[in-house]
Amino acid sequence: MTKKKIYLDYAATTPLDKRVLKAMMPYFGEDFGNSMSLHSFGQRAKIALENSRKIVADSINAKLSEIIFTASATESNNFALKGIAFANRGKGNHIIISSIEHPCIIETAGWLEKQGFKITKIKVDKYGLVKPKDLWQAITEKTILVSIIHASNEIGTIQPIAKIGEICHQKGIYFHTDASQSFGKIPIDVRRMKIDLLTASSHKIYGPKGAAILFVREDVKIDPLLHGGGQEGGLRGSTVNVPAVVGFAKAVEIYQKERGKENERIIKLRDYLIKRILSIKGAFLNGHPTQRLPNIVNVWFSGLEGESLVMQLDFYGIACSTGSACSSLKLEPSHVLLAIGLKPQEAHGSLRISLGRWTTKKEIDYLLKVLPSIVKKLREVSPFKYE
Amino acid sequence: MTKKKIYLDYAATTPLDKRVLKAMMPYFGEDFGNSMSLHSFGQRAKIALENSRKIVADSINAKLSEIIFTASATESNNFALKGIAFANRGKGNHIIISSIEHPCIIETAGWLEKQGFKITKIKVDKYGLVKPKDLWQAITEKTILVSIIHASNEIGTIQPIAKIGEICHQKGIYFHTDASQSFGKIPIDVRRMKIDLLTASSHKIYGPKGAAILFVREDVKIDPLLHGGGQEGGLRGSTVNVPAVVGFAKAVEIYQKERGKENERIIKLRDYLIKRILSIKGAFLNGHPTQRLPNIVNVWFSGLEGESLVMQLDFYGIACSTGSACSSLKLEPSHVLLAIGLKPQEAHGSLRISLGRWTTKKEIDYLLKVLPSIVKKLREVSPFKYE
Repeated sequence: MTKKKIYLDYAATTPLDKRVLKAMMPYFGEDFGNSMSLHSFGQRAKIALENSRKIVADSINAKLSEIIFTASATESNNFALKGIAFANRGKGNHIIISSIEHPCIIETAGWLEKQGFKITKIKVDKYGLVKPKDLWQAITEKTILVSIIHASNEIGTIQPIAKIGEICHQKGIYFHTDASQSFGKIPIDVRRMKIDLLTASSHKIYGPKGAAILFVREDVKIDPLLHGGGQEGGLRGSTVNVPAVVGFAKAVEIYQKERGKENERIIKLRDYLIKRILSIKGAFLNGHPTQRLPNIVNVWFSGLEGESLVMQLDFYGIACSTGSACSSLKLEPSHVLLAIGLKPQEAHGSLRISLGRWTTKKEIDYLLKVLPSIVKKLREVSPFKYE
Repeated sequence: MTKKKIYLDYAATTPLDKRVLKAMMPYFGEDFGNSMSLHSFGQRAKIALENSRKIVADSINAKLSEIIFTASATESNNFALKGIAFANRGKGNHIIISSIEHPCIIETAGWLEKQGFKITKIKVDKYGLVKPKDLWQAITEKTILVSIIHASNEIGTIQPIAKIGEICHQKGIYFHTDASQSFGKIPIDVRRMKIDLLTASSHKIYGPKGAAILFVREDVKIDPLLHGGGQEGGLRGSTVNVPAVVGFAKAVEIYQKERGKENERIIKLRDYLIKRILSIKGAFLNGHPTQRLPNIVNVWFSGLEGESLVMQLDFYGIACSTGSACSSLKLEPSHVLLAIGLKPQEAHGSLRISLGRWTTKKEIDYLLKVLPSIVKKLREVSPFKYE
């Protein structure tokens, strides 16, 4: 048993990169001003804010005025759905999402349903992919918005976003994608992919918690979610969290520079992990075999419970999860795993291992060393039958 | 002219107390976990979150389950108004606010009006005080919420909150107060004051940006603003910004301990400043002479423009504002100053000086030294007539 803790839950949140923290520090000190203030303290904060906006905008080929800083991906997702819904009610009341969205999209859609909007959840195939045909069929004359997650936070499957964007574009329907897990890790070009609204998050890419964006293409008609004092082009009130925004931009900058090498290293580790983990009897990969994020591995083990597995691994100093951190307290099986066709019992037996910037082969080897015996032990005591 | 900058805009935002930053640092490092994760990283974050909740709850005599952490006072205010409005639509559609609320309350109310709610703005007297009689008269059978700012961010006037709370309580109407400027600085007891919902902010009391609360009394029926993954008792989605929350709690702890002495010192400086500034010809105090926050001074100078005054002071290294930082880009006169009876021209000539933890007598003396000649100079070039 190792003393040092092994973190393999990078999809839940990431440690702050030291370079990011260093970039933030001045804004916790001398440059603490409110970016809306007219005096020099305010103007210094304003410059930092606008420099950060440029870095983030450039990284997805957006214009400066199209980047709205928010405090979290959850806020951005709520903003996208509610903002489009309320601003375009005159045009229609139908919204399409997929069956594997993050809980914050599903819950928001559910709330909008109570306010008189109609929601269609389109299904996915066994790999977690939305079929363009299903999208075509779901669109009606009343459809105002399609919101499809870019890459699944649970199974890592990457959607054919450009195709979906093209369909929405042809139909004249706004297209939003929740890119919380993919942003930074894989290239995104909002113009080429015909994306109208995009959510991206800081704390998933070694930036601080408390910063995110909603990209809103110019000319998109949207209501604010946080009404306020005219910040962010009048679309999002609240004093901007400048240290967090500066840190977010630094995290983006690092990824822009280092993504190639970093992904190469992580993909190698991931594929090694997948190969070895599937050699455990009764272990099966969830998600697409190739069209997946560099860092997410999701496996189900027949005849055991994922929660017990997470607990046992934690006892061995290894941090993993059963799926979304946001769903960790629920006892229901993952809606994503059910959507790709797993039975409730199979979904319950799933484990998400997510790799990151500081994951080493040694850590993966340690996991692979302890995992088989833990799986064996848990199967012996599990109420589920191991077939 | 001094080299060192003098910050007298503590009502816009405050520098971080070094003790607060120190408390936050571990959560930027080793303890970076997602508080929803089941493993030890998550559990350490969870413990920090719950300890912080206890400090904040105790400071206003609330229960733990009644504190919902948000990312900003603007979010809390949007949450309070929209959350109550949508959840209680069956009961009524009428909301009462005052005419001197922060822009985020006014804008939110305006948006709710478009969604079919009715808004009444009650007037204030020349000191900025709401009269209980006016509140009684505004209440109808359809009233579901009264939202009155605790202390004005522009003029510092403190409302008779306990009286307003008592009226709402008698009428069975929810009462929300935006305590963004007062929280920490003056004692608040939500039970004694019969407050149902309260907004409080971190970055106004030497805590970090990115943390705030909405206090929601138990049994209050409210919809989430950020739908999501079950955080904060299911009432507010999004990964909690643990470093910011920990910093917020530390800032509260410091105020709890040091408020008495700190206020004594600041009130003395404030009263000295008021007395001296009013000796400038054509200078008048805005707000209540005694029922005001320890740190906010608002003065109007006949025959000049506040924006020019702010710019000139900035040139001398002194940071002040014309009013709310959130309104700094608008060219309209302050709605708060108009509400207390100033003419547009008078409102335009106003200056807000807000003191804080590190304000010294030397700084105030320097302001008092340069101000008269700046006022004189600006009056000479102003299009407004100095009477």
